[in-house]
Amino acid sequence: MAQTVEPKRRRGKLTLVLVIFQIIFLVLFGIFVEYGEDSDAKAEQNNLEHGNGGADAMDNRLGYYYPMFQDVHVMIFIGFGFLMTFLKRYGFGSVGYNFLLAAFVIQWATLMQGFLHLHHGKIQVGVETMLTSDFAAAAVLISFGALLGKVSHLQLIILGFVEIIFFSVNEYVGAGYFQTADVGGSMFVHVFGAYFGLAASRVLNKKSWEGSSKEGSVYHSDLFAMIGTVFLWMFWPSFNSALAPGDDQHRAVINTYYALASCCVTTFAVSAMVSKENKLDMVHIQNSTLAGGVAVGTCANMMIQPWGAMVIGVVAGTLSVVGYKWISPFLLSKVHLHDTCGVNNLHGMPGILAAIAGAIAAATAETSNYGYGLYEVFPARAPLVNSTALDTILDDFTVDAGSGRTAGMQAGFQLVALVITLAIAIISGMLTGLLLKIPILDQLTPDELYDDNNFWEVPEEDTHYVKVQVDDQMKGSMDELNGATNKTEKDTKM
Amino acid sequence: MAQTVEPKRRRGKLTLVLVIFQIIFLVLFGIFVEYGEDSDAKAEQNNLEHGNGGADAMDNRLGYYYPMFQDVHVMIFIGFGFLMTFLKRYGFGSVGYNFLLAAFVIQWATLMQGFLHLHHGKIQVGVETMLTSDFAAAAVLISFGALLGKVSHLQLIILGFVEIIFFSVNEYVGAGYFQTADVGGSMFVHVFGAYFGLAASRVLNKKSWEGSSKEGSVYHSDLFAMIGTVFLWMFWPSFNSALAPGDDQHRAVINTYYALASCCVTTFAVSAMVSKENKLDMVHIQNSTLAGGVAVGTCANMMIQPWGAMVIGVVAGTLSVVGYKWISPFLLSKVHLHDTCGVNNLHGMPGILAAIAGAIAAATAETSNYGYGLYEVFPARAPLVNSTALDTILDDFTVDAGSGRTAGMQAGFQLVALVITLAIAIISGMLTGLLLKIPILDQLTPDELYDDNNFWEVPEEDTHYVKVQVDDQMKGSMDELNGATNKTEKDTKM
Amino acid sequence: MAQTVEPKRRRGKLTLVLVIFQIIFLVLFGIFVEYGEDSDAKAEQNNLEHGNGGADAMDNRLGYYYPMFQDVHVMIFIGFGFLMTFLKRYGFGSVGYNFLLAAFVIQWATLMQGFLHLHHGKIQVGVETMLTSDFAAAAVLISFGALLGKVSHLQLIILGFVEIIFFSVNEYVGAGYFQTADVGGSMFVHVFGAYFGLAASRVLNKKSWEGSSKEGSVYHSDLFAMIGTVFLWMFWPSFNSALAPGDDQHRAVINTYYALASCCVTTFAVSAMVSKENKLDMVHIQNSTLAGGVAVGTCANMMIQPWGAMVIGVVAGTLSVVGYKWISPFLLSKVHLHDTCGVNNLHGMPGILAAIAGAIAAATAETSNYGYGLYEVFPARAPLVNSTALDTILDDFTVDAGSGRTAGMQAGFQLVALVITLAIAIISGMLTGLLLKIPILDQLTPDELYDDNNFWEVPEEDTHYVKVQVDDQMKGSMDELNGATNKTEKDTKM
Repeated sequence: MAQTVEPKRRRGKLTLVLVIFQIIFLVLFGIFVEYGEDSDAKAEQNNLEHGNGGADAMDNRLGYYYPMFQDVHVMIFIGFGFLMTFLKRYGFGSVGYNFLLAAFVIQWATLMQGFLHLHHGKIQVGVETMLTSDFAAAAVLISFGALLGKVSHLQLIILGFVEIIFFSVNEYVGAGYFQTADVGGSMFVHVFGAYFGLAASRVLNKKSWEGSSKEGSVYHSDLFAMIGTVFLWMFWPSFNSALAPGDDQHRAVINTYYALASCCVTTFAVSAMVSKENKLDMVHIQNSTLAGGVAVGTCANMMIQPWGAMVIGVVAGTLSVVGYKWISPFLLSKVHLHDTCGVNNLHGMPGILAAIAGAIAAATAETSNYGYGLYEVFPARAPLVNSTALDTILDDFTVDAGSGRTAGMQAGFQLVALVITLAIAIISGMLTGLLLKIPILDQLTPDELYDDNNFWEVPEEDTHYVKVQVDDQMKGSMDELNGATNKTEKDTKM
Repeated sequence: MAQTVEPKRRRGKLTLVLVIFQIIFLVLFGIFVEYGEDSDAKAEQNNLEHGNGGADAMDNRLGYYYPMFQDVHVMIFIGFGFLMTFLKRYGFGSVGYNFLLAAFVIQWATLMQGFLHLHHGKIQVGVETMLTSDFAAAAVLISFGALLGKVSHLQLIILGFVEIIFFSVNEYVGAGYFQTADVGGSMFVHVFGAYFGLAASRVLNKKSWEGSSKEGSVYHSDLFAMIGTVFLWMFWPSFNSALAPGDDQHRAVINTYYALASCCVTTFAVSAMVSKENKLDMVHIQNSTLAGGVAVGTCANMMIQPWGAMVIGVVAGTLSVVGYKWISPFLLSKVHLHDTCGVNNLHGMPGILAAIAGAIAAATAETSNYGYGLYEVFPARAPLVNSTALDTILDDFTVDAGSGRTAGMQAGFQLVALVITLAIAIISGMLTGLLLKIPILDQLTPDELYDDNNFWEVPEEDTHYVKVQVDDQMKGSMDELNGATNKTEKDTKM
Repeated sequence: MAQTVEPKRRRGKLTLVLVIFQIIFLVLFGIFVEYGEDSDAKAEQNNLEHGNGGADAMDNRLGYYYPMFQDVHVMIFIGFGFLMTFLKRYGFGSVGYNFLLAAFVIQWATLMQGFLHLHHGKIQVGVETMLTSDFAAAAVLISFGALLGKVSHLQLIILGFVEIIFFSVNEYVGAGYFQTADVGGSMFVHVFGAYFGLAASRVLNKKSWEGSSKEGSVYHSDLFAMIGTVFLWMFWPSFNSALAPGDDQHRAVINTYYALASCCVTTFAVSAMVSKENKLDMVHIQNSTLAGGVAVGTCANMMIQPWGAMVIGVVAGTLSVVGYKWISPFLLSKVHLHDTCGVNNLHGMPGILAAIAGAIAAATAETSNYGYGLYEVFPARAPLVNSTALDTILDDFTVDAGSGRTAGMQAGFQLVALVITLAIAIISGMLTGLLLKIPILDQLTPDELYDDNNFWEVPEEDTHYVKVQVDDQMKGSMDELNGATNKTEKDTKM
C-alpha cells in the first residue's frame, strides 16, 4: 500500500492561494481593464455600424484575428494539455493542471502585459490581447513540461505567477525596447519558457526524481499524447503568424507549414536511425516533429523562401531527436538536470536555433528582396524621422519612422535579445526554484511523483475479471506460475 | 452472465422510426426549404461576383459566420459527445447517440425554426440557420445529459423530436415576441434543455437508476471526457457571440473568455475545498469549469466590463461545484431527481444565474454607456416609429424603430422570459417523460442501464495475458489468493 | 514469444529512403518554389498595405482560405489519423504513419502539382496550394486505409511517392483538360485514392492477411477512432467548399451539412437493421456516417437544393453500410480483395455515386436556375470567345470565355472523368502493388501484421496487479481455473 499524503499537510492551501489571487485579479481588472475601441459599444466607429449595411461589422478586427486566435487557444489547452498525458499515471494532472495554469495565467498576463502598455492609465483588451495572453500561457506551460509530475499544484501556481512577471518584462525589453523581430515568439516564449523551467528544475532537483517506474507511458496514454502533438503541429502556422499583417502573415503560414513537414519526415528518419532495432520511438514522434515550428518561429515572416524553411525544419528535427537520445540523458547524469517532457529538445535548443536563423535572415534583409515590406518586418530599419530617405517613401506610402538600422545592426539586436532572454530566464528560473523550496508550498514526497493518486480523486481501476488458464508448469509447481494466461470473461461485471 | 435484452423486443423499431422521420424530413425539405440569397447562384448579387475581382466573394456572409459556426459545431459533436464518455461502459452510447441525436435534430430544427420564420412561404437556409440548428441541438443534448445511460435510443429520438417543437416555440416567444436579449442562449438553450431533461428524468425515475456500479468512470474514460470539456471551454466564446454583429461579437468573445478563465480557477479552488483530503474531483473539473460560459451567456454582449464577466464566472463556478457536491445528492434523495451528468449544475442553475445577470445588466443599460449601440443589443429599446427621438438619430444613423422600452422594462422582460422558459421546459418535459413511458418505446431493464453491451456490438475486451507470480500466502493456501501479482507477457497475444 | 523481425533486414532503410527524398525535395524547392504574390514582401500590392490603414491586410487571400484550410488540415491529420486507430494493436502505426505519410506527401504534391501549373518556370505557393497539397495527401491516406496494418512504412513511402504522380496527372487531365466540376474532389481524391489502394491491395494480397485476431478493435480503440470520425464529419463542409468562391462556397457548405446529417441518421437506421440482435455496429458509425460527404462532393456547389443533398446522403449511408455488411466480405472471399478500413465502402462506391450525381446535376444546369453563376460552377459552359452570347454578358459582367458546352456535353465530360479516374487509379495502383513486392521493401511477415510491436518501441503494458479470488472449482482442481475473478489492488504499483 502506498503511503498517501497526510491531508493536513496541504489542507486548504490550494483553495486559499487561488481565492486570493482570483480576488486580486478581480480588483485589478475592475480598476484597470476596459474594452478596446473595437469592442466598446459607445465607440463612435461602432455606432456607425447601422449606417452602412453591416460592412463595418466585417471590418471589426475580431474577424481578422479570431480564427487564428482559436487555433492558438486549441494549442494551449488541447495541445499542451494532451501532449503531457503520455505519463501513465499522470493524465489528470497533465491535462488538469495545464487547464488551471493556463486559465490562471491568461488573467495575470492580461494585467502584466497591460501594465507595460497602458493607454491613458487603462488596459484595453480585445482579441489581440487575448492572443498575447495565450502566448504568455504557452511560456508557463513549457516550464511546466520541464517539471511535469515533480511539483505540487501549489508550486505550479506560484511558478506561473512569478514567471509571467519576468516573461512580460523580457518581452517588453526584447520586442519593444530593442525592436527585435520574433513573430512566432521562439525566443520570448519558447526559449524563455524552456530555460526558466529547466533552471527551476535544476534548483529543485532531487535524487528521487530519477528511475521511477511511473515516469513512462502505456499504450493508450501515448495515443492521448498524440492528440496533443497533432493539434500542436497542425495549428503551429497560426501560432507563428497570428499577429502579423497581410502578406507577412501569409508568408509565416507558408514557412511554418513547410518547416513542419520537413521536420516531421526528418524526425521519423532520425528516430529510426538512433533507436535500437531501428524502431520508431513515440517520444520523438510526439515531440521532435514539432521542433520545426519552434525553429522557424523567429524568421517565419521573413523572406527565407520555402526551401529555407525546410532546411530549418530538417535541422530542428535532427537536433531534437539527438537531444532526446543523447543530450537529455547526458544532462541528467552529469548536471542533474531532470526534464520530464524534454522541453530542452522541443523548445530550448530549437528556440536557440530559431534565434540564430532569425539573425541570419535579418542580416540579409534589404529592400531589394523585401520592397518596403522590409519596414513591416523590421520597423527599426525604417529611416529616421525627417530623413530624406523617409520623405522619399512618404511620397507614395505611409510608413512610420524607424531607427535607420542596417541589416547587420538588426541581426546584432536579434542576438542580443537571445542572450538577454537566456539570462533573464535562467536567473529568474533559478530564483523561482529557490522560492518553490519553501516548505509551505508542499514539495512532493517520492511516492507522490508522477502520480495522480494523491491529489486527485482517481476512479477505481477498470476491474478485469479474467479466466486463468493454467499450463502444465503451473500444475506441476505452485512456486512459479509464470506463463499462466487468462482471458477476460466478458459478461461478468466489468 | 448478464441477461441480454431479448432481440425481439426492439426488433426493427429504431430503424423504422428513423426511416419514417427521415422521409418526413425529406418531403418537408423538398416542399419548403430553399437556398438563402447568399447561397443562391441566380441571386443577382452573386451574378455580380465576376465583375469586381472576387471582392464580393469575401463579402458573402459565410465568411463572417463560418469560423464561429465550426467552433459551435465542434462543441456540439465533439464537446457534448466526449464530455459524456466519462461513464466507464457507455462510451459508445455517449458519443454515438450524441452524434445521431444531433444529426437528427439539426434537420428537424431547420424545419421547426423555419416554419416560425417563413419567407414567402419558404424556409431560406444558410450559415445562420445552420448555427441556430446547431444551437437547437445543444438544448436536446443537454436534456440527453440528464438522462444519459437510462433511456433507449428510441426514447431519445422521440424526446428530441418533441423537445424541438417546444424549444422553437419558447425561443420564438422569448426572443421574438418579447424581444429578450440572450445572445448566448443561456435561457433559451441551457435553461430550457436542462429543465426539460430534468422534468423528463423525474417522471421516468426508477429505483434501479441509483447505485449502479456502472454509473462511474475509469481512468481513461475520464481522459476522454476531458477532450469534450476542453473543446467546450475553448470554443464557448464562439457559442456566445456567433450571431452578434461587429463590436457586440467582439465584446461577447472577451466577456466569455474572462468569465471562463475565472470560473476555471474558481472551480479548482472550490473542488479542492469540498473534496475529502482536499483532492480534486474530475467531475467538477469536467463540468463546473464550463459554468462560467453558461452564466455569462445572456449578458455576454452587454457592457458588463471584463471584471463583471469575471465575477459571474466566479459565482458560476462556485455554484456549480456546490451543486455537484450537495444539491444533486439532495435532489436525488429527497425528490428522486436523477441527473446523470449533473446538467442542473452545469446548465440549469448557471443558466438561471445568467438570466438574472442579464436582467441586472439590462436594467443599467443606457445610451450613456452604450451609445446608439444600445439598440443593437436591445432592439426594443429603440424609440418608437415616427417619434422625435427616432428622427434625431436617423439624421446621422440608420436604426430600426423599436418599442421605446426603458431599461427597467427591458429588465422585466428578461425575467419574464426566464419564467416562461422554465414553465414551458418543465411542463413539456414532464409530458414528454410520460410519453416516453409508453411500453413500445423500450424502457431499459436494470441490467441495461449505463451499458453499451445490449445495444452495441461491443468488441471483445482487451485480453490481458498475465504472468501470475504466486506469493507465499498462495502457496500455503489456495483459499485466498489476494495479493497475487501478475505481469503482462508482452509478446504473447494481446 | 512472438518472433521479432530481425533488425538487419530493415536496418537503416527507412532512414535512408526518407533522407534521400527529403534532400530531393529540398533541392527541387530551392530551384522551383517561390512565394505567390500574396505572400511576397516585395510584391507591389503588399507595399501598399501601409497606405490604407490595414484594409489590404484583410484582403489578403489568406483570410478567405485559411479557416477552411485549417479544417481540412484537421481532417487530414486528426481525422484520417485517428479514424484508423480502431485496430487494437496498431494505434501508433495508424496515427504515426498517417502523420509521416501526409507530411511527406504535402511536400511532394506541392512539387508535382506545381510542375503542372508552372508560372514563368516557377511554382508559386500560398494558401491555395497548401489546400491542394492537403487534398493530395487525402488520396494517399485513403489508399493507406485499404492497406492498413499490412504493409511496411517503407512500402507506404514508396506508394505515396508513386501515387502522387498519377494522382496529379489524373486531376490535371480531369479538372484541367476536360474541365470537369468536382469541387469536393470526390472523383479525383476519393475514387482515385480508394481504387488505387484497392488495386495495390489486390496485387499484394496474401493469405495471412485474413483471420488475424489483431484485425479488430477494443473498447477504447473504438473511442479513439470516433475522434477521427467526428472531426471528419464536422469539417467535411470545408473540404467540399474550400476552393469555391462566394455563393458557390456557401452552397457547398449547406449541401454537405445536410447530406451528412441525413447520412448519419440513415447509417444508424441501416446499421441497426443489418446487425444481429439489431445492435449498432461501430464500424458503420465510424465510417458510413461520412459517406454522405463523399457522395455530395462532386455536386456540392451545384443547385441541387438541400433536399437533393439529403437524398444523396440517404443513398450513400445505405450503400456504405450494405458495403461493410455484404460487399466487403464478398470481395474478400471471391476476389481476395482485402480492405482493412473498408475504403471501398466509405470512399470508393460513394465516390462513384458522387460522380453520377454530379453528372445528373450537370445535365440539368442552365442559366434559368443558375443565372450567370452557371459559368462559375462550369467554366466550360461559358460562351466561346468573341461569340455574340459572350459579348451580351460582357456588357454587364466580367466572365471568361469558355467552350460553349451544353448541359448534356458537360454531363458527358463528368462521366468521362470518372471512367478515366477509375482506369488510371486501378492500373497505376496495380503497377504500384507490383513495385511494392520488391523484396528490399520489407513485406511484412504474418506475425508483423496489424501490430505496432515490431516497428515501434511499444511501452510496457499497463501492469495490472490483481487480487485473484479463487472459486470452488479452482480449489478442487488446478486443471481448470476458469472463472477466477480478480480485483485490482488500487494502491499497489500500477
